[in-house]
Amino acid sequence: MPTASRMYTVVLDWLEERLRSGEIRLGDKLPGERQLAEEFGISRASVREALRILDIMGLVRSSTGSGPASGAILISEPSAALAWALRMHVATQALPVRDLVQTRLLLETQSAVEAASAPETPARAAALAQAAELVAAMDDPSLPDERFHAHDAEFHVLLSSLAGNLVVETIMSSLRQATIGYVQETVACLEDWPRVRRVLQEQHHGILRAFQERRGQDAAAALREHISWFFGLRAAP
Amino acid sequence: MPTASRMYTVVLDWLEERLRSGEIRLGDKLPGERQLAEEFGISRASVREALRILDIMGLVRSSTGSGPASGAILISEPSAALAWALRMHVATQALPVRDLVQTRLLLETQSAVEAASAPETPARAAALAQAAELVAAMDDPSLPDERFHAHDAEFHVLLSSLAGNLVVETIMSSLRQATIGYVQETVACLEDWPRVRRVLQEQHHGILRAFQERRGQDAAAALREHISWFFGLRAAP
Repeated sequence: MPTASRMYTVVLDWLEERLRSGEIRLGDKLPGERQLAEEFGISRASVREALRILDIMGLVRSSTGSGPASGAILISEPSAALAWALRMHVATQALPVRDLVQTRLLLETQSAVEAASAPETPARAAALAQAAELVAAMDDPSLPDERFHAHDAEFHVLLSSLAGNLVVETIMSSLRQATIGYVQETVACLEDWPRVRRVLQEQHHGILRAFQERRGQDAAAALREHISWFFGLRAAP
Repeated sequence: MPTASRMYTVVLDWLEERLRSGEIRLGDKLPGERQLAEEFGISRASVREALRILDIMGLVRSSTGSGPASGAILISEPSAALAWALRMHVATQALPVRDLVQTRLLLETQSAVEAASAPETPARAAALAQAAELVAAMDDPSLPDERFHAHDAEFHVLLSSLAGNLVVETIMSSLRQATIGYVQETVACLEDWPRVRRVLQEQHHGILRAFQERRGQDAAAALREHISWFFGLRAAP
């Protein structure tokens, strides 16, 4: 039995059981705050805490403007929650940025190799077309830096999705979101950012071609060079 | 400005800023619930929601039995939080177990290769000694299954720590914790679990030897065979 201050865990455990048994599915509406409080004999404040936790973990979305009391819809959007958690743990300095970058490198290069032998599907074609559009948009020197970084992150996450592993894609997306602040700081320290941006774009074109032509090892090597070069800029004198 | 129902985010954003600037560090005590509520002009209920979120994300620990109001200590224990989030998203069927296992395989085999060239440190020696003790304990047929699974998970996480990447270690630990329920279900479906347990142990011995002798590729191959074989058991007729 949880202590009084942890009564919210009964709601979380109840939901996990219902999900596992299939009684509650994505898109379903959870019972309202009052109903849950009565059912479990706990305070509405405890129910609200549980709903907040589900909200920040990307597991529910409130259905109307009147707060979680009005019934929350079950969703599954894990990457934002994982990204926030990773970012906070990086902020505590428990997780070094270097290790995040190395992990990203490992997952991206491995995905590149696997993507080369993935089946030809409409999803693959759509992702490659979208990646090509992002690269084309980034070719425009008048694209503001903030949008360049956002496009860049999306480009990499799209490519890593081509291997077809949703967990890798989720982790990649979280790592990218967790390191965006670091990328912006790195860029702010650079003397010659416009030149660096042009080099990054040349690399993006090469990476995209290797993915399009299913040259897995080339794609992995180009990604390794691209990521190592950019993160090496900050350490350089 | 967040809406009234999301006032707790001001506390989370404030903490992230203080962490990044170094004004708050691991082990520090956060201001009490009342003080935070006054400082931000928000309700104590909103402060409590923020503290719950930090608690479940592995970022604070309550300092006494009287709840988060008495002041929370800043910690960083990301893996339990990430494991819970992954487990819930697997329960929603948004993330397939197969993809979790594939991700684990990728990270473990890559770590095995990198661990082979990691420097000889007291931490490495201690981790290898602990891994050897776990394998020896699992050799005992009278060790209850539940402890066998826990030792098994710890063994794999320890080995993946030898590559020296804390993010990979955190993700590995989360993936292991997130799939423990699945492992137990798989075992429950097996006709000849005692024999399977003996095979797993032979594989553990081989994996440990390859790590001890710095044979990275052998260690990776042995891990691949070990994990693929076990997760293939469930699919087999």
